[in-house]
Amino acid sequence: MAESRSTNITWHAGHVTRADRERLLGQRGATVWLTGLSGSGKSTIAVAAERELVRRGRLAYVLDGDNVRHGLNKNLGFSPADRSENIRRIGEVAKLFTDAGVIAMTSFISPYRSDRDAVRALFAPGDFVEVHVAASVETCEGRDVKGLYQRARRGEIPEFTGISAPYEAPERPELTLDTNRQSVEESVAELVAYLEKNAYLGAR
Amino acid sequence: MAESRSTNITWHAGHVTRADRERLLGQRGATVWLTGLSGSGKSTIAVAAERELVRRGRLAYVLDGDNVRHGLNKNLGFSPADRSENIRRIGEVAKLFTDAGVIAMTSFISPYRSDRDAVRALFAPGDFVEVHVAASVETCEGRDVKGLYQRARRGEIPEFTGISAPYEAPERPELTLDTNRQSVEESVAELVAYLEKNAYLGAR
Repeated sequence: MAESRSTNITWHAGHVTRADRERLLGQRGATVWLTGLSGSGKSTIAVAAERELVRRGRLAYVLDGDNVRHGLNKNLGFSPADRSENIRRIGEVAKLFTDAGVIAMTSFISPYRSDRDAVRALFAPGDFVEVHVAASVETCEGRDVKGLYQRARRGEIPEFTGISAPYEAPERPELTLDTNRQSVEESVAELVAYLEKNAYLGAR
Repeated sequence: MAESRSTNITWHAGHVTRADRERLLGQRGATVWLTGLSGSGKSTIAVAAERELVRRGRLAYVLDGDNVRHGLNKNLGFSPADRSENIRRIGEVAKLFTDAGVIAMTSFISPYRSDRDAVRALFAPGDFVEVHVAASVETCEGRDVKGLYQRARRGEIPEFTGISAPYEAPERPELTLDTNRQSVEESVAELVAYLEKNAYLGAR
């Protein structure tokens, strides 16, 4: 390709940079990593925040079980190694989205601190926003929208986080949303306000 | 979260759709899958097309060895199974980008028809644009920018596509760019014209 280099230098100025795409989108790429128990409200908050961001003209994209478990990670099971690999791959994909200038939001229980910290280590400071969607087991079990806690209590789901497997809460998350007390609307507002305050949502 | 459902229906209208994001971006999400020999010009064309698209205000993102092999696929080697898994994961990630409304462009040799067809099968018709970056082994070996062909001829690189491993050209690619004859500029213009003609680049 060397012969082409001289004819049109603009086409050979290398990769479009992340900054180029962020300028185009009028926002800062980031990964908003929601972690919390089943039933804590992660997915509801992620989907609602995505909607609010897109309403504001920002490009957000939710990675969750629906689009990851049956696709990229369909060849993973639930062994400890596979659970770690599941989180690792999601982290790497979120990093690609962040590099593309997108605000990626992930909604996975991701119960282990070491897995989440390994993901955080992939990112430059500020690119990874860990959000603890904090609700007690009692709160989540009280909701039990999908009946999973009931089944877990009956022993039908082995290693169910919060019942028969540990949940390691983040020690220094960028944000904690206490969904024991506040509504989805309040949590979404708090999350979007955090992103706004920290300059992820630039003027367009 | 049931109690929240009634209070703000706009926040519970479900996921933002791909159409919502495409409207925001003023384009159609797609995966442009470049396949061809080492030295055929895949990466140069991908990077140059990305630049041209972003210049036009379109959001494009290149997935290539630089951002995938050392990240998402760093735990894969070069066995036949790992090579297939490499392509499978790239296909799944490109599908996520497509769903996000982005024009994803992938630049990998991807020599096996079965691997590429398995990726194509992940996509709805029109979402997957297979582009054969066609250059003969002689052309590529003549360029040999990285000296890889020389090393492969000396037997230093086992199973090198085109020398000691097969390249299965696409039978019905959406587009063929004959880089034996045409310049990078001409190839990029042809690719962008294809995307324009087929309504991937909407008015903004």
